Amino acid sequence: MPLNGSPDADPARGHRRPRLTPPIADARRAVREALAAAAALPEPDPHDDHGPAKPEPLAPGALVLVGLSGGADSLALAAAAAFEVPRAGYRAGAIVVDHGLQEGSADVAARAAEQARALGLDPVLVERVEVDPATGGPEAAARAARHAAFDRARSATGASRILLAHTLDDQAETVLLGLARGSGPSSLQGMRPDTGRLLRPFLALRRETTRAFCADSGLEPWDDPHNEDRSFTRVRVRNDVLPVLERELGPGVAEALARTAEQLREDDDALDGLALEWALELVSQTDDGAVALDVRGLAADPPALRQRIIRLVVSAEFGVSLSRAHTLAVAELITAWHGQGPLDLPGVRVVRQNGLLTFHPNS
Amino acid sequence: MPLNGSPDADPARGHRRPRLTPPIADARRAVREALAAAAALPEPDPHDDHGPAKPEPLAPGALVLVGLSGGADSLALAAAAAFEVPRAGYRAGAIVVDHGLQEGSADVAARAAEQARALGLDPVLVERVEVDPATGGPEAAARAARHAAFDRARSATGASRILLAHTLDDQAETVLLGLARGSGPSSLQGMRPDTGRLLRPFLALRRETTRAFCADSGLEPWDDPHNEDRSFTRVRVRNDVLPVLERELGPGVAEALARTAEQLREDDDALDGLALEWALELVSQTDDGAVALDVRGLAADPPALRQRIIRLVVSAEFGVSLSRAHTLAVAELITAWHGQGPLDLPGVRVVRQNGLLTFHPNS
Repeated sequence: MPLNGSPDADPARGHRRPRLTPPIADARRAVREALAAAAALPEPDPHDDHGPAKPEPLAPGALVLVGLSGGADSLALAAAAAFEVPRAGYRAGAIVVDHGLQEGSADVAARAAEQARALGLDPVLVERVEVDPATGGPEAAARAARHAAFDRARSATGASRILLAHTLDDQAETVLLGLARGSGPSSLQGMRPDTGRLLRPFLALRRETTRAFCADSGLEPWDDPHNEDRSFTRVRVRNDVLPVLERELGPGVAEALARTAEQLREDDDALDGLALEWALELVSQTDDGAVALDVRGLAADPPALRQRIIRLVVSAEFGVSLSRAHTLAVAELITAWHGQGPLDLPGVRVVRQNGLLTFHPNS
Repeated sequence: MPLNGSPDADPARGHRRPRLTPPIADARRAVREALAAAAALPEPDPHDDHGPAKPEPLAPGALVLVGLSGGADSLALAAAAAFEVPRAGYRAGAIVVDHGLQEGSADVAARAAEQARALGLDPVLVERVEVDPATGGPEAAARAARHAAFDRARSATGASRILLAHTLDDQAETVLLGLARGSGPSSLQGMRPDTGRLLRPFLALRRETTRAFCADSGLEPWDDPHNEDRSFTRVRVRNDVLPVLERELGPGVAEALARTAEQLREDDDALDGLALEWALELVSQTDDGAVALDVRGLAADPPALRQRIIRLVVSAEFGVSLSRAHTLAVAELITAWHGQGPLDLPGVRVVRQNGLLTFHPNS
């Protein structure tokens, strides 16, 4: 019997080697495919210093760390990664973040770390963080503290990626939360499968699959009481909103939301990339040092690109994120020109003169 | 006292000239601005025979017909149009469609026509249509019959636009229905404010405004019992889904959905336009008459454009609308090339050879 045979092949080891049930097979395949996709990324062009940094491909022998809470999703990911990551030629560790927000959180973290070690992950880091709920609500604050811990863990260990266990259900919830904010297509894009620092192998997997994975593997997940706390918008989306959508609109709503998010991300990426390219062709500097955009060029662009170019220039030059209303007001200097005076917006003044839109600091 | 004074200015006419309350002012302004926007459209380029036909600007003296059901939305639109359309230099009539789906529908239609005439609209057409529910469900069938009647009315009267009373609430419902279908960004775009044949002045107005308009004007709308029939998905979205979203995610969800739809439409328009331009640069014909796309050109495009170009060529050449899965399979002949054989899809066979993707009929 080969040493690397299927987990079914060793009855003598009993419950320690789980039977390869469909949930286990699906989760492992998801990890395998995510690693392969990360490895197959093109090398970023070192001369391309415009726009956001492109993710680097996963290098042979790289270390990846599973972000582990001890809940069913991340416990299943830890187990699947423990199986797949070494087989793909990488090393798998874990990072457990103790947010210190609940009684006994240190015990929960210690137990999760113990589970990670039992699965063979190495190294296993436990990071206690301070959450400052003053910074934008408790959910956002916990998220910020957690991601800072991830960054420290990557620095400390040289890990290439943090593997996160967000599922298709999490993605659907994120899209609905974005819809409610209504801040446009970018708020509907959900989470990216690979940011270069974070890798999310489970985005196409249902939450029930990770629960079944744990049950089939004899793994005991921790049930976070926060998951039932209706003061969190996300919990209400999960427990109240999505079930109503599924009941009234038919099953498959979660999948539909996740699928839509993927396509919106593609569309937005394409338009952002083009906006950057085209902005570089239209931008110049006036004699007195103001940044300027060519009006005729902007007028010829479709509105979606014209607006992105305006937002991009204002963001890059003044660090200001223009609202949609303000962006449209700037665009009217191009599309509805009738000799308007300067447009004073928070942080930036926009003037049309001599066929140019010029942008000036405004305090 | 000037003849064209404010409606408040003639107390002698009593209830026949309503007080200018905020709902009446808002609805009239919406009609005024929609007419101005339609008049300000650029003349379509007569040499541009690619892509969908562009809407033509509204010409001075043009006739517009209000699509009137007698419900609050369309009755408010009829009254607002009766006031604004002549003042903007156009003529306003109405078309009442009797779907014949309910007992007494002819009476409802006759009463709506009477209201339209009392408001001064002329001509007022009543069209009885046959709805064939076999064609894609009762809602889709009624819609198809209604739009055919609109087309006939435009031909018969020479009307430039049908004015439809869809509100922001209708738009939000449409976006949610699109989300549930999950057929990508295009299903989330909702209804266009101006298609060239249909003009929707009320897309930024809440439904409650049209009800208040009718109450303030002494107009008695008809309450369609279908609006309470929970066998219609749209009715469940209106009565069950949107209220849950507003309650759990906070107020403003309907506005957020409508706003998102507007931006998605812009993004999709920009990408569709670019896909068409770029497809024309990449397309050629092989010696044996097959249509072909240049692989290197497609490989350099962002995925959102690559996929649109593939869909566009297949749709234009074979009348086939490729699913997302099939589109991605074709794209893999470019991005994940390892010498695959021909790809057989419904209606089209795709082959990569000599640096070209060639498309052939497949039956």
